[in-house]
This record gives sequence, C-alpha cells and structure tokens, in this order.
Amino acid sequence: MLNGLERIRLASLHDKVVPVEQAIQLIQDGSVVGMSGFGGAGEAKTVPLALADYAQQHPLKITLATGASLGNRIDGRLSQAHALARRYPYQADPDLRQAINQGEVMYIDQHLSEMAENIRHQNLPRINVAVIAATAITETGLIIPTASCGNSANFVEMADQVIIEIDCTISPEFEGAHDVYVPATRPNRQPIPLVNASNRIGTLGIEVDPAKIAAIVINHLPDTSFKMDESDADTLAIAQHLIHFFEQEVASGRLPENLGPLQSGVGSIANAVFAQFQHSNFHDLEMYSEVLQDCTFELIDSGKMIFASGSSMTLSEPCAAHVMKNFEMYKDKIVLRPQEISNNPEIIRRLGIIAINTALEFDIYGNVNSTHVSGTKMMNGIGGSGDFTRNAHLAIFVTKSIAKNGAISSVVPMVSHCDHIEHDVDILVTEQGLADLRGLAPRERARKIITCCAHPSYQKSLLDYFERACALGGHTPHLLREALSWHANFVETGRMQ
Amino acid sequence: MLNGLERIRLASLHDKVVPVEQAIQLIQDGSVVGMSGFGGAGEAKTVPLALADYAQQHPLKITLATGASLGNRIDGRLSQAHALARRYPYQADPDLRQAINQGEVMYIDQHLSEMAENIRHQNLPRINVAVIAATAITETGLIIPTASCGNSANFVEMADQVIIEIDCTISPEFEGAHDVYVPATRPNRQPIPLVNASNRIGTLGIEVDPAKIAAIVINHLPDTSFKMDESDADTLAIAQHLIHFFEQEVASGRLPENLGPLQSGVGSIANAVFAQFQHSNFHDLEMYSEVLQDCTFELIDSGKMIFASGSSMTLSEPCAAHVMKNFEMYKDKIVLRPQEISNNPEIIRRLGIIAINTALEFDIYGNVNSTHVSGTKMMNGIGGSGDFTRNAHLAIFVTKSIAKNGAISSVVPMVSHCDHIEHDVDILVTEQGLADLRGLAPRERARKIITCCAHPSYQKSLLDYFERACALGGHTPHLLREALSWHANFVETGRMQ
Repeated sequence: MLNGLERIRLASLHDKVVPVEQAIQLIQDGSVVGMSGFGGAGEAKTVPLALADYAQQHPLKITLATGASLGNRIDGRLSQAHALARRYPYQADPDLRQAINQGEVMYIDQHLSEMAENIRHQNLPRINVAVIAATAITETGLIIPTASCGNSANFVEMADQVIIEIDCTISPEFEGAHDVYVPATRPNRQPIPLVNASNRIGTLGIEVDPAKIAAIVINHLPDTSFKMDESDADTLAIAQHLIHFFEQEVASGRLPENLGPLQSGVGSIANAVFAQFQHSNFHDLEMYSEVLQDCTFELIDSGKMIFASGSSMTLSEPCAAHVMKNFEMYKDKIVLRPQEISNNPEIIRRLGIIAINTALEFDIYGNVNSTHVSGTKMMNGIGGSGDFTRNAHLAIFVTKSIAKNGAISSVVPMVSHCDHIEHDVDILVTEQGLADLRGLAPRERARKIITCCAHPSYQKSLLDYFERACALGGHTPHLLREALSWHANFVETGRMQ
Repeated sequence: MLNGLERIRLASLHDKVVPVEQAIQLIQDGSVVGMSGFGGAGEAKTVPLALADYAQQHPLKITLATGASLGNRIDGRLSQAHALARRYPYQADPDLRQAINQGEVMYIDQHLSEMAENIRHQNLPRINVAVIAATAITETGLIIPTASCGNSANFVEMADQVIIEIDCTISPEFEGAHDVYVPATRPNRQPIPLVNASNRIGTLGIEVDPAKIAAIVINHLPDTSFKMDESDADTLAIAQHLIHFFEQEVASGRLPENLGPLQSGVGSIANAVFAQFQHSNFHDLEMYSEVLQDCTFELIDSGKMIFASGSSMTLSEPCAAHVMKNFEMYKDKIVLRPQEISNNPEIIRRLGIIAINTALEFDIYGNVNSTHVSGTKMMNGIGGSGDFTRNAHLAIFVTKSIAKNGAISSVVPMVSHCDHIEHDVDILVTEQGLADLRGLAPRERARKIITCCAHPSYQKSLLDYFERACALGGHTPHLLREALSWHANFVETGRMQ
C-alpha cells in the first residue's frame, strides 16, 4: 500500500498535510460542513471523529451535509457530543435517530438527487468547509474519491475551504472507478449526455482549485464493513413472486430479456431478490442504482450481470477485500457517480429503470410509508426512493406483510405518513403475493392489495374497513375516524388489533 | 376561413371524409380510445358528442384516455350516457366527477407527463382508436393539432386506427404554433435536446402513416371558451406576498432578474399573480407551463413576457379571437408541445422552473392535498402538479387560508390525502402570508406554517395540536386519534371545529 504522501501526487500540496487537531480548527461553531460518505461508505473518518471528541469538551454545533449515511458510527458520535444542530439529507444511526425524534437535531430528510442542486442554487446555505475522503490526489490536482461519490463534487465546488482526508486503507487500484459529472449552473445547463448505464461522461476525479485546499489529513481507519441478513422464508417468497412476475413480463413482450436497468434499495429483501437472479434465466443484467452491495459483485462474478452503476459500494469485509484485490477485473464493469447523476430524474426516466425499494407499510390504495414508524418517529429517511420511484418504468415496493410477530400489519387502511403517493406505485409485493396495480383505479387497487398482499390474519378487517368506506362513497373511500386507528391502537396497546 | 376539404392538403385523403355516424362505428364496446384535448382546449367534438348520443341508445362502454380535461361538457355527456368504463389521466367535469365518486367510472388519475410513456411501454393498454382534432393535414400528411398538443402524438403512434376531426373553427394561421417531439422507445432514447423554453426541437405536426387514418370528420363546433374569476382581496394578497418574495430573492441574488421559467396552475389565483407581474419591475419573463391562459397573452402584449411554452391554450372568447386574428404576432413568442415534453422531469429540472400550483389544503408539516375533499371525494385530479413540483427549482403552493366562510381551514393538522409530500414543497402562501420552508425540519416548518399561513381563527388550535404532539416526541409529531378529526368533524357537522 502507498503511504499518505505518495498518494498526493501534486507535490505542491505536500505542505498542506497537517495533524488532525489543526485541521478541525477550520470547522467552527455554526459552520456548514459538507462531508463525503454515502451508504456508510467513502466517508472521511479521522476529521469527524476528532471533531466529535473536541465537541465533547467544547461548545460546537454544526450543520452537517453528506451524501447519505455515514459509517464508523460518526453520526452517533457527533450526536452524542451534541455537535449536530442540523443534518441533511439522510442518516441511519441509532443515536442520531433518537436525537432527531426528540427534536434535538433538526433533520432535513431530502430526495438524494436534489441536495446538490439546492446548494448550488442557494435553496440551502453555502458550504463553509468540505471534508472529503480521497484515494489520491493526482498530478493535476484531481481528487480521487474512495468508495462513494455522493455529493463530494458539489461540496468541493460550493465550499469556501476544503479539507482532504487521504485514506490509506483504500487500494490505489480504485483510481478509475469514478465518473464525476457536474451539471452546469443554470441557465447554462445542457442535457446530461448519459444514454446507457455504462456510459462514462465525466472525469476520473473531482476538480478543485488547489488554493481552496486548506488542509490535508492522513487517515488509517477503514470504512465500516457490512453484513447482510441471510434470506429467510419470507424474503425468499417475495423474491420468487418478483422473479415470476418478471418472467411473465418478458414472456408477454412488456419487458426486454435483460429487464432493463435495475435499481435496488439496500437490505435483506433486495439481497434475496438478487440472489434469486442467480438461479433465473435472466442474463445481461444491468444496474443503475445508488448502492452496490455484495450481490452486485456476485452477479458480475457469475456472468449474470454485465454492468453496475452506483454512487457507493457498501460491502462485507470479504467482498471488499475480493473486489479491491481484483479491481482490474471490475474496472470496465462498474462505475461510481455523484448522487445527482446516479439518482437523476432525467436519467432514470430516459433509461426506463425498474426500481425495487422497501416499504415500512403501505395502505389499501397503494400509498407507501418508507420512513415514519406510527406516522411520527423517523427511521432513516426517504433517501433515493423518491428519485427512482417517481421516474421509474416500474416502481416496485416490497415488505413482509406483518411485523413484530403479527402485532403490526404492513398493509393498513391509511398510511400514517406518506412518502410515495399511489400514482408512483406500480407493484406491491409481500411474502403473500404480488399486486400488479398498473391501470387500476383506487377501488380496484384496494381489492387487489388486500387479496394479494395482506396477511390472512388482517385480510378480513381490511376488507371490512374498505367495504364500509365504499358505502359512504368517494374516489378513495375512507372512514376518517378509523383510518389511523390501527396505528393508534399499536401505540397504546402494542397491537394494531 | 377554409372549409374542411381545403384543410386536407394531402388529396389522397379526401375520400376518407365520412359522416360522423359512420366514423363512430370504428369505436366499439370495450374499445380503448385516445382523444385529443387538454385543459378544455383542442378536443375533438363532433365524434365524442355523437358517440354520447349513440350510447344513450346502445350498450357502449369505453376506456377513454385524453391529454387532460375536455371542453364542451364531453366528459359529462359521455358519463351521463354511461359510456365510460375507465377514464384517464385527468378530468374536470361535474357529472363525471359524481360518477367517479360513486364508483361507477374507474378513474386513473395520473401525472400528466407519464401517460404517453405508460402507453408506449405497455403499462397501460394499447390505443384501439385515436380521435384527433386537426387544424389541417399537410401535403405530406402531417396532422396539425388545434389549441392543444396533449397526448395526441402518442395516441396516433400507438393506435390501430385514427379518426381525424378537421376543426373548421380554428384559424389556419394556427399552423406553426406546435412543436411535436416524440421520445424514442427505450432503450434507444436520447436526451431531449431542449435547453431553453423557446427552443424548437420537433416537427410542426404529428407524423402518421396515412394508411392508419380510418376516417376523417369535419367539425364546426368551437372549443369552449373560459372566463376567469376576477381577483378578490384574498387572491390579490396572495399575489402580493409572492411578488414581494420574488423581489427579495432577486435582491439577494438567489433568483435571476427574470426569475427563470415560470409554471402556473390554472385558476383565479394564478390569474391574480400574473396580473401583479404587470405592475412589477420584473421583465423578460418566460413560461414553461402546461396551460397558457389570457394572462400569458396580456403579459406578452405588454412586453413583460418574452416567451411562453405550454401544451394547451385555454382562453376567453375575446382573447381567443384576438390571438387568432393576430397570430402572426405571437408565432415567435409561443409554442405548444406534447404534454410529455411540457411536463417532462428532465426539462423541468434542467431549466430550473418556479412552479406555482393551487392546494386544496396543506398540513402543518407542508404536505399538500390537491385532489381529495375530506380525503375521499375526487375534485379533478393531480394533473401536472406532481411533474412540476417534484422537479422544480422552487415549488410553491397557494390557497386561501379558509373556505366556506371559515367552516374549513385550509391549514390542517394532517392532510386527509397526500398528493405532494413535504420534501417537494418549498413555499406555501395564503392571504395571511408566505412560509419559506427551505432548509427547515418538520418541527420548524410547523411553527412557520401556522404563524405565516393559517387563518387567525385556527392558529391557536393548530398550535395546541402541534405542541401536544411534540410532547409525545417524534420527527413529525402527530396525535393519531386527532390527526384527521377536523375533517371528520366537517363531514359530520359542516364545520372543522
């Protein structure tokens, strides 16, 4: 492995290398800080962890913008140190989640494709300091990101000062994995020229005025590695329903044989679906997604998948080691892009993506809650699910039909919080079955969702609710005094019914 | 005016002209029919009205797809004749509305930009018969639309048979007003090359294989003309809040002096806002919208607006007469596009549009209901509001703070139906004031919305709800047993409180 200085190939930057204690002085109480990191991968580590330690002793509250979630419990450590005043656009940390739900941290949960645009065009404040993890800095001063692109290019562009964290744990082979395209400031915006998941349209790293680089810190702490839950009978059933549906769509000529580019949310259900692809007849699969997981590389290794585009690589330890060691093999089969490109509505609609995301709950009309437990408590955030779902060729949501041993039905009369409106939801899948909602009116959707997706122990109650609501009339019939009573019951008694 | 045959310049088509009774025989029980028409403009009239008469006497139920709403009470007449089994993607007719809310007509309310894509890629059934109003058919067989483009190009492309209705009421000068661009079927889709509201990227009319034209009917019934409500004190106050906000944004450098392209929903509030532009210092205004109304042409006439792009022209009788008579004057200042281009997410995000749409109600966290009265009864449909709002540079919703003499508050604890999630809503305006929600977390949004937008007679109750909900915790605090009680009260007693 190369050491820190060897990775800084623009020699004039060597004297910017400073101890972390000096670097964090650039970040002050009230600063707006933009950090690299997406899906718990590619974040700066040394700087934010030192910042958390500092904040334990000193008054410091910052606004923290990132790509998405950070690894290494950084969000938790900053939160415990009460160092976060505001946080956007996504998080997935238990301590930060608690602080958000107690109203201590102001969390602005956003569509992941939109934040860079909102900073560029001043709907969100300018970045004072960007903290960006880098595999290397090239001879011409290009910053080579690590395991995610996220919003880093935007932060560097919009920041007053940049701290670069050279990550010595990342294989130098990783240079070449990225494709950094930054849309021009309006009104001089041109079409994004990407017409295929595998197109390269940008540069290999992030361009920066070297004068903006205020400090460089050397990091030796690795990215967090992740372990996906194994499939269980329910996730396997969901995967089988979905594969069967895809087979029918191909047979009927409605989908091409390789299905077109796939997007997948993170998690065990996505993992199960992709495991099933291994045993299917589909071939030449492509991903145009946010996060590339182990299953992506397994499908590439087995020859099922020909290309995967994402913004981040969130891998288990053995998979990460395998990928890094054999990166040459993957160089023409994967690419990491800024999230405003990986999640861009323009590209998602142009390519005709099949989007598979996980619902917390959905209602009988097909509205989806992805974020709020009982309508109030934030889990993680909407992430990229809105970017993909609104613009997908097919928008699919999956979940198990019940939770907490049946105390919760994932199919409810009315969602307690709406993240995806019924117009954006084509297909719903639970272990019970698949509801194809295309071209159906709300009353038709309700019967199909209840019959195909609800757990048998809740079907009768849902049908009863629906029929009593229909008797009162309306395009989307509801009983307003009962619509959220299942959630209220759960909060009060621990059971929806 | 030219007569019907003079407008059919491809002479080989002359023998396809038939009486309407013969043409409607092409439409059968169970047919999927795609008709021109958007915003009550540019619809075929002779064919659907004859069809409604026929259906009064004979069993006939069709699926009717259009651009958006139809004029001349066509939806009502078809609905009264029980001729509609299914209807998409939008309507605005009182009789059809009633049939939808009684569950008699299956209404699939859709984002207006998506329907053509859904037909092209078989998420919706193929069109059996397209019925398209035309100003003329050119020597080369190009169909020149009338006062709207809507989904007509898509219907012609996807239909088995095409009926053309030559509209003798439309000035032949209208030829040249359209720019028809049809995205290629995936996976061969290229970027849409439009980078400015005034760009022309397509053809002057709709291309068609002449063999597909099964019948031509001559029409002499004009499009419906519309009369906008005059401004009142409340709509004027809303307009003034908005103009003041725009002035501040320009002064702070966050918006350009011409604001960038504007989109506006149809209605009296939009009319009031645009009337205020006349008296403002803004200049070189541009629209990139769905429906061009009288106010658009008034701003062009006064030199305030330099270009307007839409999919439809919905005008009053005097304005329509003025525009038709002087069309040469407007030819380089307006364009009508297919709705999958006027409402396309790719273009909307690229251009950085300011979207101004009307809410039925919004909640204290900024979720918006555009469609459902008391969460159940459909008003019109979501239309293009989702296309514009999700992808806009600034997404603005306007409404009066109370309705029915104060029996209804437009600001509620929780929307009874969600069309626009809080992440998609930047600015809310009532006659009480303007809430700028950019960069705020839900708890902050709530205080601002209640203080700035709610009617004084409801502020205390809303604040009381919010504070009691906050006491229970959560990122988006709610009292589940009370959240929809205001709506339930209204249904039961005629008053929310």
